[in-house]
Amino acid sequence: MYPASLQTLIECFRMLPGVGEKTAERYALLISEQDENEVEHFATALLDVKSKLHHCKICGNLCEGDTCSICEDKERNHRQIFVVQSAKDILAMEKISEYHGVYHVLNGLIAPSKGVMPEDLNIEKLLERAKDADEIIIATSATLDGETTAMYLSKLLAETYSSLLVTRIAHGLPSGGLLDYADEMTLTHALENRRKV
Amino acid sequence: MYPASLQTLIECFRMLPGVGEKTAERYALLISEQDENEVEHFATALLDVKSKLHHCKICGNLCEGDTCSICEDKERNHRQIFVVQSAKDILAMEKISEYHGVYHVLNGLIAPSKGVMPEDLNIEKLLERAKDADEIIIATSATLDGETTAMYLSKLLAETYSSLLVTRIAHGLPSGGLLDYADEMTLTHALENRRKV
Repeated sequence: MYPASLQTLIECFRMLPGVGEKTAERYALLISEQDENEVEHFATALLDVKSKLHHCKICGNLCEGDTCSICEDKERNHRQIFVVQSAKDILAMEKISEYHGVYHVLNGLIAPSKGVMPEDLNIEKLLERAKDADEIIIATSATLDGETTAMYLSKLLAETYSSLLVTRIAHGLPSGGLLDYADEMTLTHALENRRKV
Repeated sequence: MYPASLQTLIECFRMLPGVGEKTAERYALLISEQDENEVEHFATALLDVKSKLHHCKICGNLCEGDTCSICEDKERNHRQIFVVQSAKDILAMEKISEYHGVYHVLNGLIAPSKGVMPEDLNIEKLLERAKDADEIIIATSATLDGETTAMYLSKLLAETYSSLLVTRIAHGLPSGGLLDYADEMTLTHALENRRKV
């Protein structure tokens, strides 16, 4: 058995996604060998994330002020809203520099089997924002919960604002994807969404 | 770009062994979603490992007092010393409950290519302890550095105490290992160390 303090740290690391006993042990042993200053820096970084980081009051993105830099950016098109399930999806989109509208973070997906209902998500605020929007792009994952959420949102938005354009990001064969490696759902989507060339 | 506090935490997680950009992002985002109490507990666990954990004054094992529970255990055979490269090897051995002697942690392996020389390791104290020992079991890894270290130690111990029994743990085919999957070095060891049945 490891000494108590090391065992406690191992258990902390085990809470991280995909970290098992062996990996947590390796992490904790590395910490025990690190410089005291570095470990203090790590501990402060953990606490800072909790104390400094908030959700943007407009879109739900992670930020340190009241509103995020994207919502504050006057150059962007605030009438086009890209709806994602998690703040990290925003980073992925921003990396390609192709989108110049704003975002809305749902903070999850509707999943009745896990007890997540529409009222648990950041949907009410989306409905409010949609009033002044030209287009809502729904970009939840191409999974069962992602599709359920997309369906729910598109219906809700269409019922509330009949003239609002609601779109869904395209699903199909990924770039570089081989046809015979694609699963049935992907192939079905790829066929349904075919375009004239 | 993530907010500064999140980016700092991502960089902290990246220092852990085998953690890349994506994994560090996932860890940091999970922390940002966790309960404040849990994150405080994590930060305290990090600091505690540095402030409470020491190396046993006798064997070099990790412990919270001056000496570890194994060195303090009067029931164990203190004249038999099992030499390992790292404290985590002790845990692996203790799990099989087959060894009843004590340990000695080298804290690394001799590796001239990485600038690690014998004087950087916990060898002097081993030489001191060996004076009162019946057997020294060298259990460094079956790698190049592990073999170099084993060779160095066995020579040093034999020169200093001519009557001391110095042994090396067995190398050969691992349990469940298939002959045609074994590498050349393993097969060479397995052949050399064959026993009469």
